[in-house]
Formats: sequence, structure tokens, C-alpha cells
Amino acid sequence: MSEIIVASPADFHVHLRQGNMAKLVTPHVRLGGFSLAYVMPNLKPPITTTSQALAYKAELESIDPTVEYLMTLYLSPDLTPDEIFKAKEAGIVGVKSYPRGVTTNSDGGIESYEMYYPVFEAMQRVDMVLNLHGEIPSDTKTNTHILNAEPKFLTHLHSLHKAFPTLRIVLEHATTRAAVEAVKACGSTVACTITAHHLELTVDDWAGQSFNFCKPVAKFPDDREALREVIREGHPRFFLGSDSAPHPVTSKSTSTPTQGCAAGIYTSPILLPLMAHLLESFGALDKLEGFVSNFGRRFYHQELSTENAENVILRPVGACNVEKEYHAEEQGVVPFWAGKELHWEIVRS
Amino acid sequence: MSEIIVASPADFHVHLRQGNMAKLVTPHVRLGGFSLAYVMPNLKPPITTTSQALAYKAELESIDPTVEYLMTLYLSPDLTPDEIFKAKEAGIVGVKSYPRGVTTNSDGGIESYEMYYPVFEAMQRVDMVLNLHGEIPSDTKTNTHILNAEPKFLTHLHSLHKAFPTLRIVLEHATTRAAVEAVKACGSTVACTITAHHLELTVDDWAGQSFNFCKPVAKFPDDREALREVIREGHPRFFLGSDSAPHPVTSKSTSTPTQGCAAGIYTSPILLPLMAHLLESFGALDKLEGFVSNFGRRFYHQELSTENAENVILRPVGACNVEKEYHAEEQGVVPFWAGKELHWEIVRS
Repeated sequence: MSEIIVASPADFHVHLRQGNMAKLVTPHVRLGGFSLAYVMPNLKPPITTTSQALAYKAELESIDPTVEYLMTLYLSPDLTPDEIFKAKEAGIVGVKSYPRGVTTNSDGGIESYEMYYPVFEAMQRVDMVLNLHGEIPSDTKTNTHILNAEPKFLTHLHSLHKAFPTLRIVLEHATTRAAVEAVKACGSTVACTITAHHLELTVDDWAGQSFNFCKPVAKFPDDREALREVIREGHPRFFLGSDSAPHPVTSKSTSTPTQGCAAGIYTSPILLPLMAHLLESFGALDKLEGFVSNFGRRFYHQELSTENAENVILRPVGACNVEKEYHAEEQGVVPFWAGKELHWEIVRS
Repeated sequence: MSEIIVASPADFHVHLRQGNMAKLVTPHVRLGGFSLAYVMPNLKPPITTTSQALAYKAELESIDPTVEYLMTLYLSPDLTPDEIFKAKEAGIVGVKSYPRGVTTNSDGGIESYEMYYPVFEAMQRVDMVLNLHGEIPSDTKTNTHILNAEPKFLTHLHSLHKAFPTLRIVLEHATTRAAVEAVKACGSTVACTITAHHLELTVDDWAGQSFNFCKPVAKFPDDREALREVIREGHPRFFLGSDSAPHPVTSKSTSTPTQGCAAGIYTSPILLPLMAHLLESFGALDKLEGFVSNFGRRFYHQELSTENAENVILRPVGACNVEKEYHAEEQGVVPFWAGKELHWEIVRS
């Protein structure tokens, strides 16, 4: 097995947090082999305005100026078409919709997407991207739960795509065969991110194992197979968004009867070697560069030129053990695959 | 709301452990209002012989002699028809099949029930009960996982019932609508236990919350509704088996990347008030005595006479907070519903 060259890997869904946690994890984007990070806006408070997004971007650049940060605003009722125009001018790329933000009504909640149509109209006009967390809220009355929340969301994806056919939409962190099929059935303006961990985990892995617990939860073996298939196929509208989400180690390791553990899996610092390892495991290593760089860059209009492409070289290794924990100041974060072996590593010059 | 009298509650599926843990939890059967415990044999080593079962029964009686302990043997290839006859003579009531014990072959595993047919034949002859942990092992190749492991087991239930029509069989801790329907479709020799916690929890409750994690895992809202319906219906072949399973508090609260938390929910010390609370919550309080005493006793031929019936009185209370933890020696166990309110309590004389 020989070396693999990947041009400028881009992670189109990552959580970089704030304060000390941001200081710890932001450099891990580069450590993991990536030079572009599409940064989630779910801070406290959330990033809802252009000026907040620019200030956050400046914070991240002050931590690691070598990475390109693309910003997305948190969709909320305060977001106006005017703010969209302002955001576009400032270079902000997208708007992220979380289910919680649209579930002010009791049942169904996401029906209220229609209240955002003027915003989406403005986004479509200026060619911004709508990032969808594609789950509807659990509801015992309708037998809606964390395992069918994504399939039940897909009607909303189709409605939005139909109402805004030229609006670029990304269904984030797809976990089900139903989601893969839904995105495939849409036109060229609809894409889909897939995380590293959902290519490996199934429901059995997070049952009683909080370090494998994330939202959306990993689904069934057949769903995982659908994610793998679409990557093997080299479908250009499916690309990496790691959803790498750091949490302090104790909030991952420990529950009390009244407080469960945090949802999130942290893959940033090992992301490119992990992707090579996983894609190799299911026969898709030849699709690595498309999946982790070209496909997403093309959809997001972040294509590389021969001048700005930054090659990252991976080489096969017998066994490279993943760190058990990353520390800085008083923060500690346990990565996915902690202590386990990867068979690829980045050649550092 | 007035008092409720329940004659001699019987828990037809409970884990009482060994050593210090047994000393802590065995008295909780009585504390929870129960005078009969059908005791699981999955100790280390498992209870596979009559003499082991009798010794274990004596250990439990030495801890609390006021409870009647019914014993069941762990099904393994060592169990012979002769041992069945011996067990029957010694008053042992049943044989428990765990999926692991029958999954020596790689795929499907439980096909190998047929190797036990001579044992089942002997059990049928002497009228012992077969207790089934009704799940097949997870297998990614067949898309078998912890959420469909029970429905996929049900063909085995039907095969066993057909092969041994007069063998009394209990499908333990049913969690799905499919299981309820399968048991209903069987003849009078097939019954089903239901736990307290599966009447309350769904998959959303144990995702990231290890104190709600047990096997079989709680399923979907519609499955929970099926369990509640069959109790509301007062179906006499569905009765309580708590599957109360104590684990040391740290093994419930804490995961590491290589070690998940223990599966099991502990309900013994609050069981009768909890059952009243839960059945009241879904409109089945009038079925309480049938579900927690009469139905199971009838199936197990443990009917009460007017002489030996021991009435337990429940009274409604505004709020009775469940203990946050039970301690003894170096053992600590967190009960289900820890710190939460129950609206019924046992009248202690």
C-alpha cells in the first residue's frame, strides 16, 4: 500500500466551541489534516447575527490562522432577509436550522418552517446555503422517537426543496438509508453530509456506552450500509461533515439519575487518518479525496486552484494508537477511537 | 382515592445476586411489598444443577426467610433430562434460557434450541416451566440489532410452543408489540412477564442515560403502549416479572471508552408502590392485583388459599420520594425513579 495525497481536506460540519474549549480544539482541525472548517453556530448564546459570526471567526483565526473558517448563522425568528443580505456581503456562507429552534409549537413543530420562507427566499436570491439538522422532535403520541426522527423529517426536506428549487440545502449528518435515498431523489441543489462515526457505529454501540452517544444517534446496520454504499458509489452530493463535537470528559463519562451524559463524538484531531481507515474498511479508499475534499468544495463553491491546493499526504502504518485524551488548561476531551489503532497517519513535514 | 389491598404480590423474575450484594438486595423484595421471588440463575458461576439451586435458595432464606423463593436453572449443554427429574423432585420450578447460552454457532445461534429438545421433553413431562430470554444475538450481516432482537426471536417461541404444546413457557420481560401479539396468539401454556420499567421508558430515555439502560432495551412509544394495553385488558397470561437487577452505583454511572455501563434497572425496593403508580398513570389500577399476583400465581400453580394469603395495603400519598441510593457494607445501588415522587406507599403495620 502506498501513500495517498489528498488536496486540502475540508470538514463541512464542525463544532469549535468558545473560550478554553475553543483554544483546545480549534488547532485540532489542522492536526486532523483539514484546512477548511464549516463552523457550527450553536454557542451560548447562539451566533444569530453577522457581527457575532465575524467576531467568532476572528476568535478562531486568532487561535489558528492557518485554517479557513466558513461561518453559518443559527436560524431563529430574529433572522431577517436584511440580515441575510448583510451576512452574504460579509462572506457568511450559510444558515443552520436546528429542530429546537423551530419547535416552539407543541406537535410537529417543524411545520413552522413556513414562517422562515422570507428568509429562505432571501438566501436563495443571494445563494447562501441552508444547513438542516434533519430530525423532528420526539413525541410519544405519534410514535416519534430518536430512531425515526430523521426519516420523519424528510418530507420537510422535500417541501423546502420544492418551494426553493435553487436554494442550496445540506441535510446534515445523515444516518439512515431513508435520508440517503431522499437526498439522491432531490436535484443538484441538495447535498448531504455524513460523519466519520456514523460510518462505524450502530445502535448496539451506543447502548450503555456514552462515549459513542451522539445526536442523531447511530442507527441500524442496514442504515450504516447505505451510508457506506453512497460513498463507495462516489456520489458527488454526499461529503464529509464530521460533526466533531467536543465535550469535557466527565460530561461524557458520567451520568447521574437526573442528568444523562452529553451527546457528541469528537473526531477532529484524527479525522483524515480515521476517514482513510474507515473508507478502506468498506472498500471506498479510492473515493477518499472526493468525499473529504472535492465534493463538498464543489457544492460550497470552494474549489481549489492549482495554486491554493495544499496537499496532505497519508501513509499506511502498522498501527498508530489514538490518544486517550487531549488536554489543555482545565479542559480534557476524549476522542473517538481513543486508544484504538488506526492504520493511516499524516506525513508531517 | 382509597386504600388498595393486594394479596401476596409475586415477582416472577428477579435478580438477587450473591454475597454482599445479595445481603443488600434480598430484603428489598419484602420492602417492595413482595412475598414471592422467582430467582434468576445467572450467577458466577451460573446455577446449572439442583444442588447449586438448593444451596442458593438456602443462602437467600438465611438472608430473609419471610419470602418464598422459586428457583430456575440456567439452561446449558450440561443440563440432562435426569437432572430435570432431580430438579423437579427438589421443588425447582423452571429452567431459564439465555441467548448467550444457545449461541455457540456464529449466525442465528438460537436454531440450536433443537439440541435441548430432550431436556424440554423431560420438562414437559414433569411440568416444569421454560423461561425464555427472548432475543437473538445482534448480527450486522442480517441487520439484527438490539431493537429488533426480540421480534426476530418470536419464531423460536412459536416453534417451541408447537413442538411442546403442553410445556409451560414464559417469554420474559417482553418489550414490543410484536411480542405481546405473539404470546396472545399462543395457547394457554404460554405466558409473558412485563417489567415495571418497560411500562415507563422508551428508547429516548436510555439514550445517553445509563441509569435507564437495561437489556432488553426499552423500545418505542407504540411498543410501550402495547404493554400497557395488555395490562389494561387484564389478560391473564401477562404478569409482572420485574427483572429488577442491582448493579454497583459506579458501574451504572460511569463509562470509559473501552467499558460501557452495566445493563440493568433496580426496582425491587419500591416495586409495589411503583406498580400502583404506573398502572394508575395509564388507567389500569383496577388490574393491579391480577397483574402483580393472581395471574402469575395461577400460571405458576402458586395460587393462594384464604389461609396463606398475606394482604399488602397500599395507600395514596401526596408525594413519597424514592431513595436516591441504598447502601450496605461496601455496596451502593441506585433504584429506578431515584429521588422522584411516587403517589402510593405501603402501609407498614
